[in-house]
Amino acid sequence: MSYLTEESREAIDDRNLRTMWDVHDQWSSPDTDLEPYLWEWEDIEASLRTIEEEAPLEDLPQGIRRSLALRTPGSDITSSTIAAFYQTVTPGEVAGAHRHNVGAFRFVVEGNDKMYTVVEGEEFPMEPGDLILTPNWTYHDHENQSDETAVWVDVLDWPFIGSALGAPIFDNHKEFEQPVDKEQGYYNSQFGTMRPANDNASRFRDTPPYRFSWEETYDVLTTAADNDQAYDPYNGVNMEYVNPETGQGPVMSTIALRQQMLRDGDSTKTHKHNTSEIYYVVKGAGKTEVGDETLEWSEKDSFVVPPGKWHSHETTADESVLFAMSDRPIFDAFNLYHEERKDE
Amino acid sequence: MSYLTEESREAIDDRNLRTMWDVHDQWSSPDTDLEPYLWEWEDIEASLRTIEEEAPLEDLPQGIRRSLALRTPGSDITSSTIAAFYQTVTPGEVAGAHRHNVGAFRFVVEGNDKMYTVVEGEEFPMEPGDLILTPNWTYHDHENQSDETAVWVDVLDWPFIGSALGAPIFDNHKEFEQPVDKEQGYYNSQFGTMRPANDNASRFRDTPPYRFSWEETYDVLTTAADNDQAYDPYNGVNMEYVNPETGQGPVMSTIALRQQMLRDGDSTKTHKHNTSEIYYVVKGAGKTEVGDETLEWSEKDSFVVPPGKWHSHETTADESVLFAMSDRPIFDAFNLYHEERKDE
Amino acid sequence: MSYLTEESREAIDDRNLRTMWDVHDQWSSPDTDLEPYLWEWEDIEASLRTIEEEAPLEDLPQGIRRSLALRTPGSDITSSTIAAFYQTVTPGEVAGAHRHNVGAFRFVVEGNDKMYTVVEGEEFPMEPGDLILTPNWTYHDHENQSDETAVWVDVLDWPFIGSALGAPIFDNHKEFEQPVDKEQGYYNSQFGTMRPANDNASRFRDTPPYRFSWEETYDVLTTAADNDQAYDPYNGVNMEYVNPETGQGPVMSTIALRQQMLRDGDSTKTHKHNTSEIYYVVKGAGKTEVGDETLEWSEKDSFVVPPGKWHSHETTADESVLFAMSDRPIFDAFNLYHEERKDE
Amino acid sequence: MSYLTEESREAIDDRNLRTMWDVHDQWSSPDTDLEPYLWEWEDIEASLRTIEEEAPLEDLPQGIRRSLALRTPGSDITSSTIAAFYQTVTPGEVAGAHRHNVGAFRFVVEGNDKMYTVVEGEEFPMEPGDLILTPNWTYHDHENQSDETAVWVDVLDWPFIGSALGAPIFDNHKEFEQPVDKEQGYYNSQFGTMRPANDNASRFRDTPPYRFSWEETYDVLTTAADNDQAYDPYNGVNMEYVNPETGQGPVMSTIALRQQMLRDGDSTKTHKHNTSEIYYVVKGAGKTEVGDETLEWSEKDSFVVPPGKWHSHETTADESVLFAMSDRPIFDAFNLYHEERKDE
Ligand SMILES: [Fe+2]
Ligand SMILES: [Fe+2]
Ligand SMILES: [Fe+2]
Ligand SMILES: [Fe+2]
Repeated sequence: MSYLTEESREAIDDRNLRTMWDVHDQWSSPDTDLEPYLWEWEDIEASLRTIEEEAPLEDLPQGIRRSLALRTPGSDITSSTIAAFYQTVTPGEVAGAHRHNVGAFRFVVEGNDKMYTVVEGEEFPMEPGDLILTPNWTYHDHENQSDETAVWVDVLDWPFIGSALGAPIFDNHKEFEQPVDKEQGYYNSQFGTMRPANDNASRFRDTPPYRFSWEETYDVLTTAADNDQAYDPYNGVNMEYVNPETGQGPVMSTIALRQQMLRDGDSTKTHKHNTSEIYYVVKGAGKTEVGDETLEWSEKDSFVVPPGKWHSHETTADESVLFAMSDRPIFDAFNLYHEERKDE
Repeated sequence: MSYLTEESREAIDDRNLRTMWDVHDQWSSPDTDLEPYLWEWEDIEASLRTIEEEAPLEDLPQGIRRSLALRTPGSDITSSTIAAFYQTVTPGEVAGAHRHNVGAFRFVVEGNDKMYTVVEGEEFPMEPGDLILTPNWTYHDHENQSDETAVWVDVLDWPFIGSALGAPIFDNHKEFEQPVDKEQGYYNSQFGTMRPANDNASRFRDTPPYRFSWEETYDVLTTAADNDQAYDPYNGVNMEYVNPETGQGPVMSTIALRQQMLRDGDSTKTHKHNTSEIYYVVKGAGKTEVGDETLEWSEKDSFVVPPGKWHSHETTADESVLFAMSDRPIFDAFNLYHEERKDE
Repeated sequence: MSYLTEESREAIDDRNLRTMWDVHDQWSSPDTDLEPYLWEWEDIEASLRTIEEEAPLEDLPQGIRRSLALRTPGSDITSSTIAAFYQTVTPGEVAGAHRHNVGAFRFVVEGNDKMYTVVEGEEFPMEPGDLILTPNWTYHDHENQSDETAVWVDVLDWPFIGSALGAPIFDNHKEFEQPVDKEQGYYNSQFGTMRPANDNASRFRDTPPYRFSWEETYDVLTTAADNDQAYDPYNGVNMEYVNPETGQGPVMSTIALRQQMLRDGDSTKTHKHNTSEIYYVVKGAGKTEVGDETLEWSEKDSFVVPPGKWHSHETTADESVLFAMSDRPIFDAFNLYHEERKDE
Repeated sequence: MSYLTEESREAIDDRNLRTMWDVHDQWSSPDTDLEPYLWEWEDIEASLRTIEEEAPLEDLPQGIRRSLALRTPGSDITSSTIAAFYQTVTPGEVAGAHRHNVGAFRFVVEGNDKMYTVVEGEEFPMEPGDLILTPNWTYHDHENQSDETAVWVDVLDWPFIGSALGAPIFDNHKEFEQPVDKEQGYYNSQFGTMRPANDNASRFRDTPPYRFSWEETYDVLTTAADNDQAYDPYNGVNMEYVNPETGQGPVMSTIALRQQMLRDGDSTKTHKHNTSEIYYVVKGAGKTEVGDETLEWSEKDSFVVPPGKWHSHETTADESVLFAMSDRPIFDAFNLYHEERKDE
């Protein structure tokens, strides 16, 4: 579309100006070209085995992780704001220490109490279902001191900070492995029922280093289910991880994390929203309808619900638990969240 | 002081008017007539035994507790804002269920896991050192199902709400013992690392019902001490109980609660403030200088540091722990807190 | 009521202890002994003339104002939290400079642009209907450079801070009149539509020095009325002064100030609350039912609605404007506000 | 860089997975390819005259504005978050009514009191230097009822919401010109020194419709300069527009707006930051060093300081005023702002 003569267009272009109708289309339609997708654990696992063999960690630079990004069809990464990976570290390997203003967390697929993520001087054990925060600008490395290969889901707000804002900063620790100078449990103890008096300034840019053990997570989730609390017809029993400093969600300023429990026979109503949801299947099996597609999931799979797609969930197992990752906090920060619900 | 004729004074008085110089003195000097005082456990215990014998709970109305208020010399209660009591319930007795807009908590002197405070449907066991919140407008009763007499420190913002603001409201439960419809641990589980998604409105006027066990309290305190955290030269290792909903102090909107640990040989610097401090000795023995007096305390004693008195603490035991109760949150709400420090 | 032998009572008393039933009654009933009262301007004026004659300002100490407190029947001051006065300064007189942690404001009854309240270096003119803030710990003096006697309503949270909290502090300026080093309009200009970038810390403990001119106040009030905004069936068109720094009420942390407009024929519904309301009649005439009494008011009168009394207002003039002063912010700070409404 | 066999790469790719080293580079370096640029008014004006002639508004669809975007070299728009345009409306023309979740404001270059932006039912006159907010989801149209062509700077967070978040929504008003049902001054009157009591919920998603007149802006700026306030060695006298509801900056949740005054002889120190600054020259003339370039500006010019470039400003006129637009609020929302200063 142009209303100008070619000569006029060129004169405008030469002055580093552009007509509004020329830029209009570029930013005027919501993203609709992302497609839902399910990554089956079997496939992921096969690819993890391949990269373990062909790319030993010791051959990689300190800042590079051996991990596989989930690429949503229609994009080159998981969403416009969030990148999700499966990372693997084999016995004896270490993924070296670094920090970045990109915020991240780890959700454990396979691990044990000798597989550590070290964050700001504390070793956090990584057992299945554990959530470990490695927030904005905290040093972290991953050390497998066990005799089993460990795998976890690695999630970062990298596309948002690195690409959308164009502002990533990155810093390798001066040592390959950072020193451990805190006892296990140190950071969690800082955010309990007592705090230093007269000193409520946070030492951290975002949320602190923290471990949410699966044991506690599952306990809170079943207590809520047993007391008929936190039920949401669009999500099931819907519990949110909170920032340990404030007791409020979201747990990170850019990413909200929830556990959704679907009990025997549960199916949710259908809604859509302008935010992205990435799911990891912690427990059970079931189906998610997204737009025209049906994603059939079981344990350790991941799937994506892109923005603007109608979706609903259903369990086919007695009990399913879905770990939900959403970029809604970014939208909420600017009052941009938009949701539509069917059947209301 | 008057500048008026007697006739003028009377005419003014008849119109329900008063000259400013007439009211001036009444409100222009800080309270200075309160004196420090130490209540020794031996004396308290003797008086508790007396009232147990002479006033069985079953003879008292539902709203009345069998307890002894600490009267600070110069006042008729502990401070202008806070009333502290020692309450006793013998085996088989029940102090009946009621609620009030006065906020309260209990800190256990002698108890066990069959001595319960029931708050809003949950039984909270009362073991020595436990802190149980029975906040503003929550139903609570105390039931001794053990075979030992229980004693605790009962603290309320009653003088502030009942007298200063003149606004107490009170309500007996329709049953003498409220029904128990929650499992033990229910309320604490509501304020952990996960919360219902999309629902962050509090159900409570102030802080929620909650139990801070001594085990956890002492653990947090020693972790802080071991890591050289939270040290304050005027208070020792100084950890504050936080509101479980927000992770921030004060734990109640009117009263701040802290544990102050004095380690072997510790003595604090001297300061004074316009707020009241009431202390209960959880552990150890030592001395507190207040104004011209020296209070020598040991376990289960209480003492008061009235507003405006210079004071410092010193442990004579290897380790002392003082439970500190302060009305500072009322002063902070209006930017009225004032402190002076010696030796700075 | 006692359950103890006389000997037991004495032993308890000797230890500075008191039984709970002994203190119970003292703090367990809301204040109900305060009575509504109307102070007519004619009477106030007569008494002001008396004190002007008999007590020239130059005979009074620097910290003393020549003013008359409103004494609510059943109390020795206006309410348990607020003291309201009418103050007078005759041509050429100065009420000297001091500050206090008690917060105050002035609402002008009679004045002009040569009658100044000087606050923190700026002269604020006092014309009828103007509201001047002299907040917590700001130096202020009153200088009548005109040839007319000025009168204003002086209101302070003195009973709350001085008596209930027992914590007043007071400081005379080293000079009788503080130096004027700011241009008129300086403080108001600091809280407009632009503020210093990267610097949003307040320099003031509470609200800043500020003048709300009657011209602007009346304009905002009539705009609201004309647009059918801010109507409250219990108060009429009900606009609240806001803290200039935040745009939110209450204007002071202890006292909320509102203007209530009753338009031709307006009468309000009946409610009661546990907070005190003190009214000054800016404009018009009407009636207020309080409990069993009817207060008939006209311009420059004041009246009090004590806590817990049912009340409603009615205008008999074409338009009435009532300036309402309430201690509700103190109650809101601790979630203690309680209201009941008739006819709902 | 690859560590895998071609066959392995393809297998991974087929599963919609990507190795981390493959995506790493894409998001790991801050944007450094944007170049500073100055758009001179003379050139802009010539291009505006061209589009006025060749593209009458009546030939354009309702949602299209006749405006020219500033394209920063290295990008296709002004910054990764903000788009700035110069828009023109000739006598009798109307740019039709629409709304969008993209937030916008207008800063007037040439206009008068018959040139209106209509926002949510109120006509806001557009005189030179006025700032008019047309925030997130408010209907707005532009109507030139004068006999002079009007020009203003149009600024939107369109690249952020439309492209980075992929979430623009847009809605034409059902009528080409929205009805005017508010008096002039209505919205500004809502955010003055009084607000409706008991009703502090905002009706707006972000900031409200509002007009900051140049007269008031310049007055506040000179008052600050005269009182030696708000001086920042990196920006000069640095005053920020605030959100009228809260009195706090930023004025919009995505964009901060400031006026920087450089007085006779002023030059600033040098700093850089990871946020973008777009400048419009309101008054005066001067030079800005950005990286290796010197931008010489005078009235009505615009220029851009891209992220990561060292920069300093200097006035060559007696007094210069720069209107600064920054995306820093987006960075602050996630604790990502980063600044470095020379000479400290
Ligand atoms: Fe969803
Ligand atoms: Fe102290
Ligand atoms: Fe009322
Ligand atoms: Fe800059």
